Amino acid sequence: MKRDGMMHLNLFVMGNGHHEAAWRLHESAPDHVTGIDYYKRLAHIAERGKLDSLFLADAYGLPPTIQYKVLMSLEPFTLLSALAMCTERIGLIGTASTTYNEPFHVARKFASLDFISGGRAGWNIVTSTSDVTAANFADERLPAHSERYERAGEFLEVVQRLWDSWEDDALLADQTEGVYADTERIHQLNYKGRFFAVRGPLNLPRPPQGHPLLVQAGASDSGKAFAAGSAEVVYTAQNTMEDGRRFYADLHARAAACGRSSWEMKVLPGFCAVIGDTEAEAVEKENSLHELIQPEFGLSRLSNVFKTDMSVFDLDEPLPFDKLPKQEEINGHRGRHQLFMDMARREGLTVRQLMMRTASSRGHYAMAGTPVQIADEMERWFMNRAADGFNLMPPYLPGSLEEFVDKVVPELQNRGLFRTEYEGFTLRDHYGLKRPPCRNWRHSHEQAVRQQ
Amino acid sequence: MKRDGMMHLNLFVMGNGHHEAAWRLHESAPDHVTGIDYYKRLAHIAERGKLDSLFLADAYGLPPTIQYKVLMSLEPFTLLSALAMCTERIGLIGTASTTYNEPFHVARKFASLDFISGGRAGWNIVTSTSDVTAANFADERLPAHSERYERAGEFLEVVQRLWDSWEDDALLADQTEGVYADTERIHQLNYKGRFFAVRGPLNLPRPPQGHPLLVQAGASDSGKAFAAGSAEVVYTAQNTMEDGRRFYADLHARAAACGRSSWEMKVLPGFCAVIGDTEAEAVEKENSLHELIQPEFGLSRLSNVFKTDMSVFDLDEPLPFDKLPKQEEINGHRGRHQLFMDMARREGLTVRQLMMRTASSRGHYAMAGTPVQIADEMERWFMNRAADGFNLMPPYLPGSLEEFVDKVVPELQNRGLFRTEYEGFTLRDHYGLKRPPCRNWRHSHEQAVRQQ
Ligand SMILES: Cc1cc2nc3c(=O)[nH]c(=O)nc-3n(C[C@H](O)[C@H](O)[C@H](O)COP(=O)(O)O)c2cc1C
Ligand SMILES: Cc1cc2nc3c(=O)[nH]c(=O)nc-3n(C[C@H](O)[C@H](O)[C@H](O)COP(=O)(O)O)c2cc1C
Repeated sequence: MKRDGMMHLNLFVMGNGHHEAAWRLHESAPDHVTGIDYYKRLAHIAERGKLDSLFLADAYGLPPTIQYKVLMSLEPFTLLSALAMCTERIGLIGTASTTYNEPFHVARKFASLDFISGGRAGWNIVTSTSDVTAANFADERLPAHSERYERAGEFLEVVQRLWDSWEDDALLADQTEGVYADTERIHQLNYKGRFFAVRGPLNLPRPPQGHPLLVQAGASDSGKAFAAGSAEVVYTAQNTMEDGRRFYADLHARAAACGRSSWEMKVLPGFCAVIGDTEAEAVEKENSLHELIQPEFGLSRLSNVFKTDMSVFDLDEPLPFDKLPKQEEINGHRGRHQLFMDMARREGLTVRQLMMRTASSRGHYAMAGTPVQIADEMERWFMNRAADGFNLMPPYLPGSLEEFVDKVVPELQNRGLFRTEYEGFTLRDHYGLKRPPCRNWRHSHEQAVRQQ
Repeated sequence: MKRDGMMHLNLFVMGNGHHEAAWRLHESAPDHVTGIDYYKRLAHIAERGKLDSLFLADAYGLPPTIQYKVLMSLEPFTLLSALAMCTERIGLIGTASTTYNEPFHVARKFASLDFISGGRAGWNIVTSTSDVTAANFADERLPAHSERYERAGEFLEVVQRLWDSWEDDALLADQTEGVYADTERIHQLNYKGRFFAVRGPLNLPRPPQGHPLLVQAGASDSGKAFAAGSAEVVYTAQNTMEDGRRFYADLHARAAACGRSSWEMKVLPGFCAVIGDTEAEAVEKENSLHELIQPEFGLSRLSNVFKTDMSVFDLDEPLPFDKLPKQEEINGHRGRHQLFMDMARREGLTVRQLMMRTASSRGHYAMAGTPVQIADEMERWFMNRAADGFNLMPPYLPGSLEEFVDKVVPELQNRGLFRTEYEGFTLRDHYGLKRPPCRNWRHSHEQAVRQQ
């Protein structure tokens, strides 16, 4: 079962924690989530634990269920840039949707964050999953799933070309000769595609990492194809180690078919752990969180996954599979739909039970246990190639992150599974990924910016 | 000549300074402009000088003249958010164009910056002035001037409604009752206009300042109309105190016609000062900067203002007025066009002389003198109602900012013209502007988010 290298750990920052009732715990400060001090504290704990990165999800709309949960957030670029100033090493991954942005802006903002943080920026590439977002951009509904992925492909292509529009040595700053930049080494893209027409070049030099790290979480077939072709870190929700292994093997095989080596892509399943000094204590903690759940919210959450009003069904009857839409009919978060279906089928869950089972981490793997039990489970996934590391989803924050860093991280370190010190400085360093070379422009001098 | 209150000072941060050859000075570090430490240093000096705010201009493209000057920059939101973390009081004003952005994103980013900075965010509203920007967003050319301003009006309307979509007390965070936010006090906009359709609400509560500060620099008729109706701080380029007075009177009259009080809008002309302990020393400094100028760049700068290839004219002949387009024919920076025309006519300048006269500050008022002479000139503009304060454009950075803060600011303070300590905490406090009340939604309960 020997594996080279160590596991990677990413902190998924969300509200007062991933358990939907976390904000109701006495120790939570649910009105602090709009201030920077709270995130600063989380970042400091994560960096003390030598985590590879922290990550902010994002969407561009307010779900109507804001009554029940912290469903709004500071904007990722402003928040991550602020965090860059009070951290030294940890990677900073932000979400930007290719469906409701322009590639020029996204390329520039990530480049800028990469400069400000000294090479610690990463982009979680998403295509948006909700009509609540669409309605803020003149769309009644999201564009079709396939169209969103087609646009995502073009978007990424343009962004990468923008990052490469300055060769690495184009900034001369030659004061004596009066040459600030070598315009022979700065190039237009003259990109014209189905969705975008972008002339370039970017108005920033090539970022410290060359390309900020590319992260993605596609779960559908097109999503996995996208990840296999381009993503360097892949987030995924897997409910059992066996499912995780299957996903891992599938994705790595697809990546190999794209000509990529296995070290070029790290798969990180979500991992939600309630930690106790004894198993009984952990279970008790989990139960006290579950007691704070509001069924109206759980039900609306399921309704959203299944795109069906779930309140018409009996909560204590088994999930009515034949009354729910098939995956192909979902134009939203397809992966989540499948995960919930599988879970309910495998465990024979009622609607209410499915609601509870997914309250901690929305379908990602969740467990309650001692630090040793948790490290055992992580080791098992890692050694069996169900994971190259984990997307940590602490049920409540900062409490269960602190426990993880103080109790589970040392256990993983003792087993030689996790770093005891940062070795490199950039986000790519942490994930063992190379700085991509600038695409060769040498033979296309006719595109040099001077000829504009 | 008595005036109530004090003047306001804003630092216009740009590359290595506003003089186009500043980057070539030995003391400049032109390769540091992509790193955060440089801006941190500028912000610290400005805050030591008790300045009201610092400001970042922005455009979304790289001018082909990058060979001659620092014409690229970090992205304003990421840069300002980083600066929020290492400053305490100074306001942070960023530029965002209404022509190439979406109101939802702009509303959210400024709200987020306002939260992170504790109420120090300001928005310089621009409509973009260059086809270089247009080409990165699938446009051959900028939309027509009138269309850009029409879109700007709608854009601002949507952004303000988004900032008001949560009433001030909508975030309850009631842990016991399990009510995170009061959805009766969070409202949809259901905005449908010519350019935008935005349902809302914003996915952030109302920002600390209610609305981040609104800044604008319109110079055309529609630009001034926009400023008079909405801007709280107005940047402007004025070459003489008399022109400044005329602009000031015009704009304040227009604002009054919109029903606004005079304290609600502060007019800040650009001010570029080369400072010496003697006048001779100041002039010598200015000359040594001028000697580093590259004529090719100056010429391309003029060509851009006049939208005409200036290299076909004799550099040492008077500006060929009849061969240049009229203001109405310019779809770009109309104010700059007029300023340059006026300057050349008034002073009888040749093409070369106009190039030199505008090298320090692109047409904004520029002088070289002692701290007393500079304070005299500022006092004169202020007392004669040509200015409510100034947009400081140090010719080289950080050097001439440091000199200003150490030598001119104390002189202004001694004269009772500038604060000796910050009194408030928010950007609105510094400019003596009120926090706008949330537009009254009380009578439109049918729009509450719950009814979605
Ligand atoms: C850990 C994780 C984080 C995600 N974060 C976001 C996010 O911030 N914004 C978003 O729109 N989608 C997010 N998604 C959704 C994915 O981008 C993707 O849409 C989803 O996994 C369904 O896959 P599909 O798009 O291939 O159908 C996330 C998914 C996972 C597993
Ligand atoms: C001090 C100052 C700063 C400006 N900053 C920007 C900027 O960052 N981006 C931009 O597109 N325009 C900028 N402008 C241009 C103005 O927004 C405006 O377009 C210009 O003054 C011409 O006015 P008009 O648009 O009414 O014709 C600036 C103007 C001034 C005076």
